Amino acid sequence: MNVVIIGSGAGGLTTASNIKKYSANAKITILTEDKHIAYSPCAIPYVIGGEIEKFENIVMHTPKDYERKGIEVITESKVVDVVANQNIVIYEEKGIKKEISYEKLVIATGGTPFIPPIDGVNLKGVFKVRTIEDGQSIKEWTKTTKQAVVAGAGAIGLEMAFGLKEIGIDVTVVEMVPQVFPRALDPEMAKIVQEYLEENGIRIILEKPLGKIIGNEKVKAVIIGEEQIDTELVIMSTGVRSNIELAKLAGCEIGRWAILTNNLMQTSIENIYAVGDCVEVIDAITGQNTLSPFGTTAVRQGKVAAKSIAGIDAESSPVLNSMVSKIGALEIGGTGMTETAAKMNGIDVVIGNAKALTRARYYPGGEPIFIKLVCEKNSRRIIGCQIISKERVAERVDAMSIAISKKMTVDELLNQEFSYAPPVSMVIDPLTFAAEDAFEKF
Amino acid sequence: MNVVIIGSGAGGLTTASNIKKYSANAKITILTEDKHIAYSPCAIPYVIGGEIEKFENIVMHTPKDYERKGIEVITESKVVDVVANQNIVIYEEKGIKKEISYEKLVIATGGTPFIPPIDGVNLKGVFKVRTIEDGQSIKEWTKTTKQAVVAGAGAIGLEMAFGLKEIGIDVTVVEMVPQVFPRALDPEMAKIVQEYLEENGIRIILEKPLGKIIGNEKVKAVIIGEEQIDTELVIMSTGVRSNIELAKLAGCEIGRWAILTNNLMQTSIENIYAVGDCVEVIDAITGQNTLSPFGTTAVRQGKVAAKSIAGIDAESSPVLNSMVSKIGALEIGGTGMTETAAKMNGIDVVIGNAKALTRARYYPGGEPIFIKLVCEKNSRRIIGCQIISKERVAERVDAMSIAISKKMTVDELLNQEFSYAPPVSMVIDPLTFAAEDAFEKF
Repeated sequence: MNVVIIGSGAGGLTTASNIKKYSANAKITILTEDKHIAYSPCAIPYVIGGEIEKFENIVMHTPKDYERKGIEVITESKVVDVVANQNIVIYEEKGIKKEISYEKLVIATGGTPFIPPIDGVNLKGVFKVRTIEDGQSIKEWTKTTKQAVVAGAGAIGLEMAFGLKEIGIDVTVVEMVPQVFPRALDPEMAKIVQEYLEENGIRIILEKPLGKIIGNEKVKAVIIGEEQIDTELVIMSTGVRSNIELAKLAGCEIGRWAILTNNLMQTSIENIYAVGDCVEVIDAITGQNTLSPFGTTAVRQGKVAAKSIAGIDAESSPVLNSMVSKIGALEIGGTGMTETAAKMNGIDVVIGNAKALTRARYYPGGEPIFIKLVCEKNSRRIIGCQIISKERVAERVDAMSIAISKKMTVDELLNQEFSYAPPVSMVIDPLTFAAEDAFEKF
Repeated sequence: MNVVIIGSGAGGLTTASNIKKYSANAKITILTEDKHIAYSPCAIPYVIGGEIEKFENIVMHTPKDYERKGIEVITESKVVDVVANQNIVIYEEKGIKKEISYEKLVIATGGTPFIPPIDGVNLKGVFKVRTIEDGQSIKEWTKTTKQAVVAGAGAIGLEMAFGLKEIGIDVTVVEMVPQVFPRALDPEMAKIVQEYLEENGIRIILEKPLGKIIGNEKVKAVIIGEEQIDTELVIMSTGVRSNIELAKLAGCEIGRWAILTNNLMQTSIENIYAVGDCVEVIDAITGQNTLSPFGTTAVRQGKVAAKSIAGIDAESSPVLNSMVSKIGALEIGGTGMTETAAKMNGIDVVIGNAKALTRARYYPGGEPIFIKLVCEKNSRRIIGCQIISKERVAERVDAMSIAISKKMTVDELLNQEFSYAPPVSMVIDPLTFAAEDAFEKF
């Protein structure tokens, strides 16, 4: 079997390794524009902030590692066309046009940061956060930076803001919608994160766009509303768009935002698969198409694609878009549907709130934990959960992700058994308190 | 309504508070032999070890707090008889015999440490770990203690052993069976805990009973096998027996180990309820009766009993005996069935093992995490999980407890979505690795 994979992110590499697992003789070639592969873009803010020493550390494998597994990786190569009816990919390597044929093609082209077309966006000192080179350029630039502006208050924007603050830079975050974490959190939960950032000296400007960037070659200031803010550094974390151009050239069917696949990760063209940030997925709550730009989703899809290609039964599942972010000492997590999203989808919900502690009340070091549970009114099922604390958030999110996947009701959660020891939990789990609160409102 | 509750542990107090919630006018009287109520026995080792400053801290409420809620608490009173056909309880308070009538009686008499009848067990310096007074006596005694022996290597024994070690005492643990955590862990998982204890200078003697305790008024040494070990302190953590004498006097039906109830927490006598360590529960995996001597179970049963008494629909659920223990820096957790227990019950299982990390490989501070997943061969369902690490164990146990409660299969766990950020998890969750390992062995 001869498989070509376009893209060397989590989706492409997982597909490659897993095909090898099931089909040792498969010929696999990965084409990638990147120089470095197998690094974690999510780790960039923590290298900036100094938690991780250097960018080399976040590169987990080299092309040579893959070659040893029998997977060829052609780096710094740009695919320019996919000729689907001839099963050929045309790419440029060091300026030379080449072609490669395939039996199965996997499009794992990922996403590209969306940079709004505002004045000054091409000045030096304006960065996106996607590749390791982006991270390296930002780190170099911060050596002479005193002030920074971050546009976009999603996870990556806020993680970057905190990282920059940690190395002594004054940071302003600007976000067009009236809250931070616009997608993952409801407003009152977002407020907790905002207050934490503000307590740590980060300025947050909401409900205003980044108007323009001023400078002469290099960034000098930005205009936000009426205000001019001096800055030498601008981070654009204003969202990501799926890279679907090659899929279009190949003739694959495209949905509202990205490539359409069936649950084997097959596109509309039988021998072309697609995985990762460039595909649409099914929302587990609404059953509608959505995006799931997470490494975890790309990995799960890569495994399914590899099994499908190797002729093994596998099916991708709808997503809850479970996420967690660590900003300073704060962990912020969520899974399933927010109240805001439920309202937009016309779903009647009952909310359970809890503010509790992460350890027994008397045990030193316990932290406040804030939980919001979103339950569907008709079915009494849990359909979403948001959690914020300084410890023990991620796994609670995962527990709720399992509960939602398995269609657990608030009544079942109320009776659910939790483990307990004074140093690690309360005798009544905070999730039980949230379930009680919801239960009483039904 | 006139309710009498015997016992002021988690079960009795939860029942009392919850009845008041639903039935504000209920007359509630709690009779207890204890002087202090509403404290956490699980916290005693951490006061000994110094993590918690003093015993006063672990007392969460006083009898006065309950009186303010309209609940009368008669402390240091010993119930001597229950005359069920007259709905009367007879008790002694400060040597004076009194009686109190009830419409509903709740037996929440808990358990008593089982002290094996060996020589020297009544010497000064031999302690059990149950009440706050036990803790206070041990703390006082440790002021002049250089060497201690702990008999019994369950959670409380090992937590005490570590606490004593932390304050500079040489500790030997002796356990009759060939592993620590005989009930919660399988042997190879127990070995990880044992090694941690040994690395921390605690001696573990397995497969030998505590033969006898030697001393003249005070403990001087113990005999274990052929060996005499000098010691000034002996902790007996050799198990707990349910206190069922009063239930027997009342004429309630008794099972193999403890009081039998229906799923409303009603005993065989209609107006007598029982909750906590003194009742038998149903094992969620086998459907057979078992014990569940955990505060969490007592609390959930107390809530059900209160609702039943107040005439509100409620039902107790079968238990998984989810547990977590913190010993030094190590968290040890488990839920559902061990492989050992599965074999004893004739259940064919497939095991999934994983050794992974709690953070992304490159993120500083990540800790090894060991997971053992027990799956039923026929149904492919997860029926048990054991986890050991220095962080993020408890909530993962809870996630698996939810998975088991909702009858999740290994195939579903394999596809399950987990949240991810480099500081708090790996992009592929350790639980997924364990599921993959099991999947491949089916």
